[in-house]
Amino acid sequence: MTEIVMNAIGVIRTPFQQSAGTPIQSYASRGAQGSVELFAGFEAGLRDLDGFDRIWLLFWLDRAAEARLVVRPYLDVVEHGVFATRAPARPNHIGLSSVRLRGIEGNVLQVADVDMLDGTPLLDIKPYVPAFDHQPAARIGWYEQRLAAGATALADDRFEKKLRNNRGD
Amino acid sequence: MTEIVMNAIGVIRTPFQQSAGTPIQSYASRGAQGSVELFAGFEAGLRDLDGFDRIWLLFWLDRAAEARLVVRPYLDVVEHGVFATRAPARPNHIGLSSVRLRGIEGNVLQVADVDMLDGTPLLDIKPYVPAFDHQPAARIGWYEQRLAAGATALADDRFEKKLRNNRGD
Repeated sequence: MTEIVMNAIGVIRTPFQQSAGTPIQSYASRGAQGSVELFAGFEAGLRDLDGFDRIWLLFWLDRAAEARLVVRPYLDVVEHGVFATRAPARPNHIGLSSVRLRGIEGNVLQVADVDMLDGTPLLDIKPYVPAFDHQPAARIGWYEQRLAAGATALADDRFEKKLRNNRGD
Repeated sequence: MTEIVMNAIGVIRTPFQQSAGTPIQSYASRGAQGSVELFAGFEAGLRDLDGFDRIWLLFWLDRAAEARLVVRPYLDVVEHGVFATRAPARPNHIGLSSVRLRGIEGNVLQVADVDMLDGTPLLDIKPYVPAFDHQPAARIGWYEQRLAAGATALADDRFEKKLRNNRGD
């Protein structure tokens, strides 16, 4: 298989030091504030980003466990294929969250609704554009019942890589 | 900088052999059909994905030009920072599109609303969940005027890497 090599372009700062207690998805993180620090040399890429209410962050889930193809996600009590979940233990550890953009100064973005761990490496920023990103999707699989039931919206340590028992459940 | 290494987990098949004429974003690609072929060993990760109307595909923009921090995107006639656009010539060449899931057989997903080039390497599949992915975003920067003006929704070759003149515009 061909290797694809990327480099972090910055780092995301959040109040969350460990998975346990971290909001699951930005929708569960109303108001939690953080920042995005772009590394030197990338600041020119931010031109005109201040016109957007919301941005996508793509990031490297650097503390997630090795890939598992079948997982019991935070929001459920039974197992599903990892591609039918947003669980961190994916073959390529890419996280995707939209956050609210509060302001930009130099190479630092102030954001809200963060749901990633402090120090998470940043891979990309994209503008959030409802014309592109809001699409109809009535069927949402196993989430339908779980979200309706008010399943907990906080993570725990099940997908963290450094626990002794992180593969065995 | 720390290198982050990923491997493609599959390949995306679409009707589009070159950037010129390819829809910009899946919203401009109503009905264009394609498929996603997962490589051997990943099929177990698809369990229960058939319950979803729509999925996110994250993919490697393997034919995009080297990163430019300031770009004139397909949809505009003036330049913007690359992070304020969805242009392919990004520091990390990750593409993000939601597509409609039409069916799954074995390791092959039939999808619609595709906007990527044929043969694009697949990095990840995530379920599309409106509770997570539909967020309010009234301000959409430069897109507001351009989308209202009915800017063309087809790509051209400006971000393709193999053209002699692909850096100079």
